[in-house]
Formats: sequence, structure tokens, C-alpha cells
Amino acid sequence: MIDPKVVSPRHIAAALTELWSPRVVGEVDDAFVKVAKVHGALAWHSHANEDELFFVLKGHLRIEMENQSVELDEGEMFVVPKGVLHNPVAAQECHVLLIERKSTQHTGDVVTGKTRSVADQLRPL
Amino acid sequence: MIDPKVVSPRHIAAALTELWSPRVVGEVDDAFVKVAKVHGALAWHSHANEDELFFVLKGHLRIEMENQSVELDEGEMFVVPKGVLHNPVAAQECHVLLIERKSTQHTGDVVTGKTRSVADQLRPL
Repeated sequence: MIDPKVVSPRHIAAALTELWSPRVVGEVDDAFVKVAKVHGALAWHSHANEDELFFVLKGHLRIEMENQSVELDEGEMFVVPKGVLHNPVAAQECHVLLIERKSTQHTGDVVTGKTRSVADQLRPL
Repeated sequence: MIDPKVVSPRHIAAALTELWSPRVVGEVDDAFVKVAKVHGALAWHSHANEDELFFVLKGHLRIEMENQSVELDEGEMFVVPKGVLHNPVAAQECHVLLIERKSTQHTGDVVTGKTRSVADQLRPL
């Protein structure tokens, strides 16, 4: 679906103009690689059958979960296991790389003003 | 299988003492996230049914393929599509992050002195 080419997730994320609007930059088998520019909190949600990888390209991200929170600095990653209720929060602008199954809804079963369709995330950059 | 925790792929890769010996630093659904320290050429090989993502954490990597080569600088990524014969080459020491299906043999069907078993790649860091 996506032509394989060399991409710089860091540069693509930096050029985004919308917050909380993930964009697909590649695909690996049944997963999409996405980047997003975030600031503030997304929404509490979970993905019943899908893990979700967060890798911080720039800035700092806190991932709040039911029983713990983790703090990610630039260059650090964390995988939220399937089924775990979580909420990504960035006190300041943060650029992230995400790896999610193609079937994953980025706000899970929760629909908010920040929810973006997969078609929206696949728009050409 | 692997306890989810915050990891720094860049720092883990920098601390590796062996070349071409990928180590698992996380898992996302049916894929492993690995890091490796590489220098020189690996081996021409392909993965019939699996894509393979390369993300350069430090240095520069050339991925030679049947009909083209791509050059990756630090922070850049490329996905080798399934079935494509390829050979990663680093003229100088390079640190990479890889995303591969758990079933992927890192040198495909080719067994060389550099081939590492999945068990070896899963050794504790």
C-alpha cells in the first residue's frame, strides 16, 4: 500500500501542524509505523487485542496506566500491553513514533474530538 | 514473555560488545523490537513472508537490494519488503533498531558465521 522509501520520522513529526493527529510513515507486515505531535492529554482508552509501542523522538511523554505511570525521555520507548487502560500525557510539545496494528483505533473504543480515522492517518504527508 | 518497561534502544545498542548480534528489547504483538551494533556486511538473504524495519540509531547504514540500494542516516528508517533479497552494509560502526516478526530468522534461509538463534537474541541484557 505504501511505497517503501527512506523516511525520517523525526523530521516528519517536526513538520506536522496538527496535534494528536497520527500520520502513517511506514508499514511492517500487519502494523503501521506512525508519528504524531502531541501536547496535553489524549484520552483514557485501551486496545483489547493489540499492544502499542511509544518511542519518544523529541520531548517527554508520561503514559498513565491503571496501576502505574511511566515517564519517557527522548530516545526511550515503552509498549503498552493489550487490554491495559492508558492515557498519554505531554506537559509540553512532544514528538512520538508509534507502532500499532493496522486494525488499531488510536483512541480504542473511546471516541473523542481527538479521534482520527485510519483514512485520515493515511493521508499523504 | 518480556516485562514491559521503559528502555532506551540507543543506550542498549551503544553498550553491546558483539557485532551483528541482535538483542530483543521489546515486543509488540507478533513482532520483536531489537537493537544491534553492526560494522561491515551481514549476508545476502531474504525473508519470504516478513517485512523488516531498519531504523538507524547512530551512524550510517546502506541496505543493498537486488535492484537498488538505500542509504540511511541517523534517525532514518526503511522497510525491506518481504521477499526482497537484501544485505545491510555499514562502512563504519552503526547502531540500528530492527522490527521483525518473532518468526523471522535474521539471516533468512542463509546460515553464516553471523547467524544468531532467536534464543541467543533473547538473552537478558
